[in-house]
Amino acid sequence: MSSSAQRQPVGIGLVGLGTIGTGVVKVLRSNADVIEQRLGFPLRLLRIADLDTETDRRVDLEGIRFDADTDGLLDDPAVDIVVELIGGYDVARRVILRAVENRKHVVTANKALLALHGEEIFGKAAAQGVDVAFEASVGGGIPILRSVREGLAANHIQALYGILNGTTNYVLTEMEATGEAFEPVLKRAQDLGYAEADPSFDADGVDAAHKLTLLASMAFGARLTHEQVPTEGIRELLPVDFEAAEEFGYRLKLLGIAKAHGSSGIERIEARVHPTLVPARSLLSQVDGAMNAVAVIGDAVGETLFYGPGAGELPTASAVVADLMEIAREIRRGGFGRVAPLSYLPEVLEPKPLVPLGELQGRFYLRFTAVDRPGVLAHLAGVLGENGIGIESVIQKGQGGGSVPVLVLSHVASEAAVRSAIQEIDELPDVTAPTRLVRIEDDLS
Amino acid sequence: MSSSAQRQPVGIGLVGLGTIGTGVVKVLRSNADVIEQRLGFPLRLLRIADLDTETDRRVDLEGIRFDADTDGLLDDPAVDIVVELIGGYDVARRVILRAVENRKHVVTANKALLALHGEEIFGKAAAQGVDVAFEASVGGGIPILRSVREGLAANHIQALYGILNGTTNYVLTEMEATGEAFEPVLKRAQDLGYAEADPSFDADGVDAAHKLTLLASMAFGARLTHEQVPTEGIRELLPVDFEAAEEFGYRLKLLGIAKAHGSSGIERIEARVHPTLVPARSLLSQVDGAMNAVAVIGDAVGETLFYGPGAGELPTASAVVADLMEIAREIRRGGFGRVAPLSYLPEVLEPKPLVPLGELQGRFYLRFTAVDRPGVLAHLAGVLGENGIGIESVIQKGQGGGSVPVLVLSHVASEAAVRSAIQEIDELPDVTAPTRLVRIEDDLS
Repeated sequence: MSSSAQRQPVGIGLVGLGTIGTGVVKVLRSNADVIEQRLGFPLRLLRIADLDTETDRRVDLEGIRFDADTDGLLDDPAVDIVVELIGGYDVARRVILRAVENRKHVVTANKALLALHGEEIFGKAAAQGVDVAFEASVGGGIPILRSVREGLAANHIQALYGILNGTTNYVLTEMEATGEAFEPVLKRAQDLGYAEADPSFDADGVDAAHKLTLLASMAFGARLTHEQVPTEGIRELLPVDFEAAEEFGYRLKLLGIAKAHGSSGIERIEARVHPTLVPARSLLSQVDGAMNAVAVIGDAVGETLFYGPGAGELPTASAVVADLMEIAREIRRGGFGRVAPLSYLPEVLEPKPLVPLGELQGRFYLRFTAVDRPGVLAHLAGVLGENGIGIESVIQKGQGGGSVPVLVLSHVASEAAVRSAIQEIDELPDVTAPTRLVRIEDDLS
Repeated sequence: MSSSAQRQPVGIGLVGLGTIGTGVVKVLRSNADVIEQRLGFPLRLLRIADLDTETDRRVDLEGIRFDADTDGLLDDPAVDIVVELIGGYDVARRVILRAVENRKHVVTANKALLALHGEEIFGKAAAQGVDVAFEASVGGGIPILRSVREGLAANHIQALYGILNGTTNYVLTEMEATGEAFEPVLKRAQDLGYAEADPSFDADGVDAAHKLTLLASMAFGARLTHEQVPTEGIRELLPVDFEAAEEFGYRLKLLGIAKAHGSSGIERIEARVHPTLVPARSLLSQVDGAMNAVAVIGDAVGETLFYGPGAGELPTASAVVADLMEIAREIRRGGFGRVAPLSYLPEVLEPKPLVPLGELQGRFYLRFTAVDRPGVLAHLAGVLGENGIGIESVIQKGQGGGSVPVLVLSHVASEAAVRSAIQEIDELPDVTAPTRLVRIEDDLS
């Protein structure tokens, strides 16, 4: 290929001009200089397709064909790479598969789709000789997938812990700072544009589970879909839980956690999303507001942490355009498939049994709600003791009668034993509301 | 190339079997399974050369030719990639250049060499059609160079702040925790093996300046050598500085700092290494002990941070083997030079003028030492005021006579004004020791 051919632009087609799509247009325009200085050739955004061609996105679309003709874009021979930013399942899947059939490379931020249909999509892309890149789907602007896939590729990954959803981290940070309950803080997050009108993907942990699914697949070479990942959201947390966490030396975070189990090779994996007490001295516990972070523990490297904005127009666009640059290099070099999308070669990916939550050993935070009467604590402690669960600390918020929270930090126990004790305790006449359990991760430094 | 040829091992030759070299042998052995599962073929360590073939490294060298014949290794046609881990300038440079002349790719952790001779080495490698990879040279196991070069490649990097030397960070953390002076803590670090017998590379900031040189070159497309980087070490810090920093809401860290200046394009850059007061609420200030971290600010992504072990046998080996994997892929694909080593294409790298320290605007911590006599503070404040420097806070450690420290937090001022005031103050009869200045970085979140 001649030197001048090497400098020809690579053609981009963008499907979906929402917040992130608009950010991609802005970054491709305002950073065109540095992109070309790093690549040696320009990226040229040729076409944008979106059903809504009316709304003013306040971005310069000069020289870009913008219409609702998605199929036309997907079939346009000048488009080398399709950026899918419409989200959701059905239409996005159709867009990606048609792009792949047309032998166009794909960049997407669609974790929901990949966490469910990743295998189909990566398989068809490999068969067609194109790449599907998805750095923007996890951790927003943080180059976490590249880091797991390449930077830490010499390691057996042992564990990862991620604050993977900015909305819930913002809500938790605000609840802790203000002492307010979940609902008003969520309402404020929505008013500020941090949370969707339908907050269930965020608040119930589903978005974090999508992201954890991709991370765990990469870390362990596991075939995994997000439906397998036990997932709890943050709706049940009360202001008293934040106070107790602080007194016990912890902070409350919604974590996605994945760990490898097995003495020779990975026999089983843990993968779970739930509110977690994280040691207040740990770096991960200091990640506040809408920021994301992922701690990755490898057998050679030890503990690493990757931190940055987990969402937003420009941070997410930063990741999308990094993927465009990587694929554009491959196009100019006449290649594809440099690195396996899920880090391990597709042929070695295999389903790994998940460790049932009941088998997990750890310490637990328990919020009992009981009548404020002498002897109640002794009764609770008795049932815990009968189930082999020791108590490390107790905070009793006596208020002179009525129902009060009794906040317990347990010694190490199995979750099955704790659940069995809770079941018994919740049937006691003095216990007036279901007991809540929050898992503790003590291994983070 | 046939499928079986694709699965042939790539041959590695290792020059230098010290701590990191031994770690590389261990990682290549113990993680051979996961390396092959990610690459599709094995990495095979064929030869090791070291002048010392006697010391028992407590590592399995079965099947590896180990002798002192460096030239034989460099000329061995079975060796595809040479790992240079001898460090220093002259011999290492000769080893790398001979490998390159023999059209072998190179992996090195030698920041000192690259910060001085990077341009020569990268230029010769490009001319010979081979890669020189050096992830292990900065941040130990943290994949920071990959992240700047690829993960954040869509950004104009605006600033970076790095804790780049684990030894000094360990010493600072210990001095803060124990209230001890520099010398006994350094001695303990040496006893623990954290510091070299000759600690000047660490304690005087030279090692951090080497690393910052590489990071700043990548971030800004700058031709830069470490000799241009103003560098101060940590020897002058006293226990009272740590107490004052805490009272003022800061922690003391040795930072490498680089920033871009200019309204359209980068006109000048800042690059400097010195003790710095970092806001105690910032994530970077929480990086303790021998750990490293680099905060990178990009115009699209915002603030990111990369954290992990900055040194040590296995963490550094993790980075070396990641580089081996990346180059091995290129060998199998018949390519090289996928990404420019310093992120920007060599032809656009250019010298950028450095902003003189005197022009820097910021707040400063000043440690005056003066006779404990009424009116001294008024005198100091008067001279500062005449130089246009406002005082935000003062801590006066009066001890009833003798010389005492007067610790001042200034308002924003230029460093030139502060230096001019200091010069004047240090001539006052009541001032009994040279004033010390520590720069403050307030922008970190």
